[in-house]
Formats: sequence, C-alpha cells, structure tokens
Amino acid sequence: MSLIVGRNTVIEALSQNKNLDKILLYRDAHGEGIGDIRRLAKQRNIPIQHVPVEKLNAMTKTQHQGVIALGALIQYYEVQAVLDHIYSKGEVPLLLVLDGITDVRNIGAIARTALCCSVHGIIIPNTGIASLQEDAIKASAGALGKIMVCRVNSLAKTLDDLHLNGLHIVASEMKAKHNVFDIDFALPTAIIMGSEDKGIQPIVQKIADQSFKIPIPGGFESFNVSVATGMVLYEVIKQRMKKCS
Amino acid sequence: MSLIVGRNTVIEALSQNKNLDKILLYRDAHGEGIGDIRRLAKQRNIPIQHVPVEKLNAMTKTQHQGVIALGALIQYYEVQAVLDHIYSKGEVPLLLVLDGITDVRNIGAIARTALCCSVHGIIIPNTGIASLQEDAIKASAGALGKIMVCRVNSLAKTLDDLHLNGLHIVASEMKAKHNVFDIDFALPTAIIMGSEDKGIQPIVQKIADQSFKIPIPGGFESFNVSVATGMVLYEVIKQRMKKCS
Repeated sequence: MSLIVGRNTVIEALSQNKNLDKILLYRDAHGEGIGDIRRLAKQRNIPIQHVPVEKLNAMTKTQHQGVIALGALIQYYEVQAVLDHIYSKGEVPLLLVLDGITDVRNIGAIARTALCCSVHGIIIPNTGIASLQEDAIKASAGALGKIMVCRVNSLAKTLDDLHLNGLHIVASEMKAKHNVFDIDFALPTAIIMGSEDKGIQPIVQKIADQSFKIPIPGGFESFNVSVATGMVLYEVIKQRMKKCS
Repeated sequence: MSLIVGRNTVIEALSQNKNLDKILLYRDAHGEGIGDIRRLAKQRNIPIQHVPVEKLNAMTKTQHQGVIALGALIQYYEVQAVLDHIYSKGEVPLLLVLDGITDVRNIGAIARTALCCSVHGIIIPNTGIASLQEDAIKASAGALGKIMVCRVNSLAKTLDDLHLNGLHIVASEMKAKHNVFDIDFALPTAIIMGSEDKGIQPIVQKIADQSFKIPIPGGFESFNVSVATGMVLYEVIKQRMKKCS
C-alpha cells in the first residue's frame, strides 16, 4: 500500500484525481491546507479518518504534518460516470448496491460474480467497510480491477439519484412478500443486497420500489450473501437472455 | 480431534460404527489385526493413509502398534441410507455430487446452500479431500452437522448405482450445449459439480445423462464453484416450486 505524506502532497494527489483509499488526519489538525484537504476529499468521496498523532507517527518517519493518504489498489468511479458509460453503450443499466456488507472477501466474491453477470457497477458506502486491498482483490479473482466500483457518502441520496435516472430499485429482504423471480429485471435496475445478520437499513429499504426474497425450502437459516447475490444475478441473466431471444 | 490408538481399539471403533475421519497406518505394518482393519475400513468407506512411523510417534506417546484412527466431527452416511431416507419421506431425490472440489471451505459453503435448498445428501469422493474439520464446519455455518454427507470410494460406481435407482444425472460443464434452465429438475436428480480449474473428470462426465452450463454474459472467466452451485440449486428450487403450485 502506498503512502502519500504531508499536506501539500496530499492536496496535490487529491487535485490530480489520484486513486486514494482514505485519508488519515490527525484529529486536532488545523491551519494551512486542512480546509482544502477536507473540501477536496468530500468532493471526491474519499473517506477521512480522524486518528491520534501516534498512529501517523507509527506509519512514517517523514514529517507528516498531521496527514497521510493511503493509495488505493482499485480505481473508484462516480456513479454518474458509470451511468454515462452504460448509456453510451446503449445498454440497460444493472447496478449492485451493497449495504452493510463489511467482509471484504464477501465484497470480492460478489465482484467476481457481478463481472461474470454483466453488472455495470457496484456501489458501496464510504464508511464501515475496510479498504479493498489484497484480500478483497484475491477473493474477486481480479474482478475488482475490472468492474466499476463507486464509493458514496450516502446510499439514500445515491438511490434518490438513481431514481431520477429512471432506475427501478429492488431490495433483497428475507421477509418480503414477492419471490425474486416475480421481479421484472428487464427494466433498468439497481439491486440492493444487505448483510446476512442485519439486512438492509430501514432508510434504504424504504426507498426501494420493491422487495424480494429468495425462497429457502430447507428452512435452514439463510444463504451466504455472496451466494444469494449469485442467485439473484442468475435470475437477471436468465430474464434478460429470454427477453433478447 | 479425537485419536483412537492401537490395533484392537481401532478394530473395535470400526466394528461399532464409530464416526471416523480416516485411519493412519504405518506403511510397513503387518501381522495381527492389520488385515481386519483394512477389511473393515473398506467396508465402511473410511480412507486409509499410509504414513511413516515417525508421523504416528509424533501424534501420541501411547503404544500405537502402527495404527491411529482420527475421529470425525461429522457423521457420514451410506448412499443407500440417504436414498432410503428420501423414499421413506416420499420426496423426489435431490443429491449433490462434488468431484475434485478440494477446498474444504468451499465444501462447507456448498453444504450451507444445499441445506437451505432441501438437498437430501452430498456425495464426495474418499480421496483428495482434506478432512472436514472445524474450517469446513465453520464455513458451512453448522450445515455440515445437519445435512447427510456420503464418502464413496468410486464416484463412477456410485453414479451407476444412482442410475439403477432411477436418478437423472446431470453435470455442470462450461462448454455444455444446454443452459442450466433447459434441464428438467422436477425429475429425481443428482447434480455433479466439478472444481473451478479442472472441472469434472471425463470418466464421471461420461456417465451423466445431460450436461449444462451457466451462461456468463460478462465473459469473465468463471464463477466460484460455491456461487455456481447456488445458482443451479436456485434453478431447482424455482422449478420444483412451480411444479407444486
């Protein structure tokens, strides 16, 4: 993992749109450059983590001036850039939104399946997820380097934007009335998948147009989220293939 | 993991149908009891691994007489016992056969999905797979303790037996002509899934009545075998639900 150390260097990296994973900021940092760093990081959706100065001292022997940025192994995109890309290819949007899935190996495994299934982009929240580093990339079999990944500050706001762009938003929920095969995936669609234990946040669930469940005839607890995502995407593939034929 | 040490103790454990994972036998062992151990182990489908005496010495301070058996954490069943169980419940058989899947965490993950999807039993070969110990059981979220698992000496012979029992045998193969949704899963079915790198052995593939593929519209290499199994079992659930309704 590459480190970018010091206020001016970090401002430069931010201005040049360098791939950054996150910024570690001394929690009492103030003065020259700090305001710029906060503003640019917010613009580019790069999370800032406030840390004690000892953490920064332990990471480098260089004069860090209270700020170190961590280079990202994968390229992050704006949601709008993903949508523009889809429309320029004349395709029907298919996006995956992951809410509360914190295990980076699960995110990697989902990225692999998503890339196989022609998902255009994966949207993850900016907070609560560890960096997508080697572990996640290995679990994705390299797919994380090929699929468009977006990090967003607010899932709710992003979903509102997707609505404005005409996307049908559907959410996986174990207690939903409809089965996943009752959903019309031929529409431009964003699919929200939640974590196995907590599911999808109520505020996010509320924005969805429809909820669906995957039937569990055997009654055993639940599917692993990466397997469940595979089942949903298989249903999408099948519906979209039949639509085309 | 519990150890059963010494010739008579191992013979007793074998005769009493104790749950055994495998038997470690000193490669030059001979004399009293060894023939019995070999015969009983073969009868019960328990693998024998030939090891140097140093390996046995390192495992116990007790007098081992050239043989140590390892207790199993999960219960293994005979294929015929699984079939009898299915027929006694009046259900349509659904079996999963894993060929060459050596990652025990993948086997665990598959067991979890299988139990959710009402699969009656999982058949794995006796060789080439590490013991299903804590790692596998954790990955299965406990499902390995609840689903019937069979270990067999020969997959080919087992598949012949399943044919005689009227099962339709279908195999996952990336280059198959048919898609998975072209298969009729309402029939009594055994599904063979192969490893991601090597696929299914030709001799096993040949016994299958039909092969199927899961379409990969995104063109990226392949699905993880646990995700692919989930997709196939989802298709089974869906077809069997619609058949009943």
